[in-house]
Order: sequence, then C-alpha cells, then structure tokens
Amino acid sequence: MRLALWQGHSPAADLDLACAQAEAALAAAGALGATALVLPELWLPGYNRPDLPAHALTRDSAPLRRLAAAARTHRTALILGYAERDGDRLFNSAACFGPDGALLANYRKVQLYGPREAALFTPGDRLETFALNGETAAILICYDIEFAPHVKSLADRGVTVILVPTANMQPFTHVARHTVPAMAANHGVAIVYTNYCGTEGDLTYTGQSLIAGPHGEVLAQAGDTPALLIADLPPRDPARISTQAADLRHL
Amino acid sequence: MRLALWQGHSPAADLDLACAQAEAALAAAGALGATALVLPELWLPGYNRPDLPAHALTRDSAPLRRLAAAARTHRTALILGYAERDGDRLFNSAACFGPDGALLANYRKVQLYGPREAALFTPGDRLETFALNGETAAILICYDIEFAPHVKSLADRGVTVILVPTANMQPFTHVARHTVPAMAANHGVAIVYTNYCGTEGDLTYTGQSLIAGPHGEVLAQAGDTPALLIADLPPRDPARISTQAADLRHL
Repeated sequence: MRLALWQGHSPAADLDLACAQAEAALAAAGALGATALVLPELWLPGYNRPDLPAHALTRDSAPLRRLAAAARTHRTALILGYAERDGDRLFNSAACFGPDGALLANYRKVQLYGPREAALFTPGDRLETFALNGETAAILICYDIEFAPHVKSLADRGVTVILVPTANMQPFTHVARHTVPAMAANHGVAIVYTNYCGTEGDLTYTGQSLIAGPHGEVLAQAGDTPALLIADLPPRDPARISTQAADLRHL
Repeated sequence: MRLALWQGHSPAADLDLACAQAEAALAAAGALGATALVLPELWLPGYNRPDLPAHALTRDSAPLRRLAAAARTHRTALILGYAERDGDRLFNSAACFGPDGALLANYRKVQLYGPREAALFTPGDRLETFALNGETAAILICYDIEFAPHVKSLADRGVTVILVPTANMQPFTHVARHTVPAMAANHGVAIVYTNYCGTEGDLTYTGQSLIAGPHGEVLAQAGDTPALLIADLPPRDPARISTQAADLRHL
C-alpha cells in the first residue's frame, strides 16, 4: 500500500484555503497512486485557535462535502482532522472519506491533551476500525498514539495501518522521533503521523511528520517546513512482528 | 547523576575475562565519578551459549563476590546480568552491587524472550526498586523494557532510573533506536540500556547501547563495537514530564 501525508502551516481558520490545499495534495497523491492521504489534526479550522468554536462543522457541512468529492475525484482516501459540532457539544474529530467519497469513519479523539482541549471538547468514547484497500485501518489523533493500550487494542482487532492527524509542539520532539516508530514496531502496525509545521499563537509545531512501517522503519520523515510525503509500506515479515501482545506477563 | 555502561563482546564463558573487563570498566567509570556502571545481560557467562547451565552461579559464588569487591574498591555501583542457579532452577538475573559492595538488588527477568530462554529459565515474578545516590532505581532485563506496563509500574513507584542489561540482536534495531527513548519520555525515567556487540553463535548483536534522559534525550549512544559510555543525567523538567500515567482513559 502506498500512503501519503501533507504537512502544512495551519490554515488559520481560512476554510477555503484549507480545502484548496487538501485538494492540491490529494491530486498529487492520487496521481502517484497513493491509497490514502493524511492531513493534520483540526485541519478545519486549525489547531491553536481561540475562534475554533465559531468554525466547528457538522459532519454533513459544505467543507466536508467538498472534500469528500475531492477524494472521489482523485480516487484517493482522505483522512483529516476537523472541529465537529454535534448539538451543543464539540469534538476533536477526524473523518476518513474513501476513494468513492463515502464516509468510512468519523473518529472522536479519546485522549484530549491539556486544559485547553479539555475546556473545548467532549472526549470520544470508542475506537473504530474500517477496511482500506484490503487492510484494516483505524484513526487515532495526536496524544492518543502515545498510549500503548490503545495501539494494542487496535492491533488486537487486526488493524495493520493507523492514520494519525496530530498537532505536536515543541519541546515534544520525542514523539515523532521515537514514540511513533516504537509504537509501530512494538505492535506490528504501520503509522502515518501528520503534523503541522510553523508557529500558531503561542505554539511552535515540531513538524517531523512521518510514515513508519510495521517494524518501526522510518520510511519517510519531514523536517519543519511544508512537505508532501509518499511511501510504500514494505511487506510485513511475520518473523519480525513483535509477540508482545501475547507475551505480557501480568505481575 | 553520572551513569556509565560497558558494551563489549560476549566473554564466551571465560568468567575470569568477564570479571577482568568489568573491573577495568569500573575503574574507568569510578575515576570519572560515575555513580553506576551497567554491563550486558548474562555477562556471566555470555548470552547465547549452549554451555550456559554449566556456568550458572549462585548469588554468593566467587565471581560475584569478586565483582562486589571491585564495586567497593572503585566506589561505583555495578549492575550486571548473570545466569543464576537457585536449587534446581535457573534464572536470567541481574545483580546490583552498591558502592560499598552490598547487594542492593537481585532481579530476575520477567519477560523471557523466545523458546530458548523459556527452555532454560524460570521467569521472575516481581519488580524491585532500590535507592541509588538519592534516586529510586530499578533493573529490567532486555525484553522487559519493551512492555509499557512494567515501565509504568516502576514509574508509579517513584523510580527515576532504570538499568537494563540486554542482548538485543539483529534485526531488532528499533529497540535501541526508538523503543528505549520512547519508554524514557513516555514515563519520565532515565534508562541505561547496555547491549553486546559482535557475533555469538547464530546471533549478531545490534550494539547501539545508550543512556536516555527522562525526556527521551539520547545522551550517549554506541555503535556496534566495544564502547564505554559515561553521561550526566539532565535535571527533570516537571513541565516536560509526561502526564500519561494519569491521563489514560480506559475504553
């Protein structure tokens, strides 16, 4: 499977710009035969925004319908973070539109990070899995991927690819450099981890977006400027897949 | 705290050579003011040895008394792996001798790796902690460190330094490159991970021994040849210590 990610600056609540960048990246990824493209956390409208509630979207809003159509046009699945409004509640969500434009998953972040997110969002209460090009896939968002129990839970359900919109900021460079490849290797799953670059308000994002193979291989990794990454997953070698899930001795 | 490790070739069941190398490394580490020196897994008599049972040692055997005396001579704690005989049973153990030569811990590996270890050894059934130069320390051995629940359990008990004799072989380079720094950062603990280099029987060790700080910093890392590493732990920055232990949402 060929996977892609777009690491960009925050669209800063310009939803038309955010959609146009997503369409351009989808066109490039689709032309190169990528199965799926992953964008950062809260790509609509941007992560670190006091005006976020004013830009929250329902699942069937016009910007999301526009991006579903773009996925269909370019025959490439699209995973992106967005601020989801559901009645009175907001969720830090990520949608996956399949290559036919259908909504394959709408995941709500379980592990909200820090007091700002806790003040804005209701946490999600479940993991979901879905079929993607013959593999079983799932979405996690940012802080979620740092918790081994969630990754293990997905691996136990047969997930082989985890798609992770994120907004990882300084000084937490260890997440992209070490935690993500380690989670991939320790649970035998490929991970696409898509971050922002640049500065937004009081945060400087670390960039370092990456595509990790199921043995912890760093197949592609960005610096701290805008980048489109496309990489092919290597075959899974059963002899190298960790047996951790079965081996854990409870003390 | 200043910590040291010695990455060497397997002593190949030459216990006198193993002790002499340990003494030389202790002398160097002690002269530089290191608090503790960590040697690889099963340093007595070597990791990948069909003749291992013939070289298993009781806790009060002459080679271990010799090394306790060396720790005292050089005023430097020593952590080393050894094949422990206790009645009819063998354990994959590691001892810590304090700077006064006293036995501070005798840890038995919990997570035995693969069918060879399972055939040879009885697994340990407990973690232990001990005081080391004002910090709370613990030993894990090789595969143990790849399991987040064990690292979390130690961090929950106040452990800030984990000393890890290991025998990590190709192709599992992700462990030293990613898993160890990620475990350090995710649980806010320093880790000394001491591996072999070179080849022993059908195994090629990966080397890559490292000292990781409590934010996942790689303070020193070896290649795949013999190396003595000494590094100072940086102060722990409370703002950077992960809150994961408290944050996990059970689904």
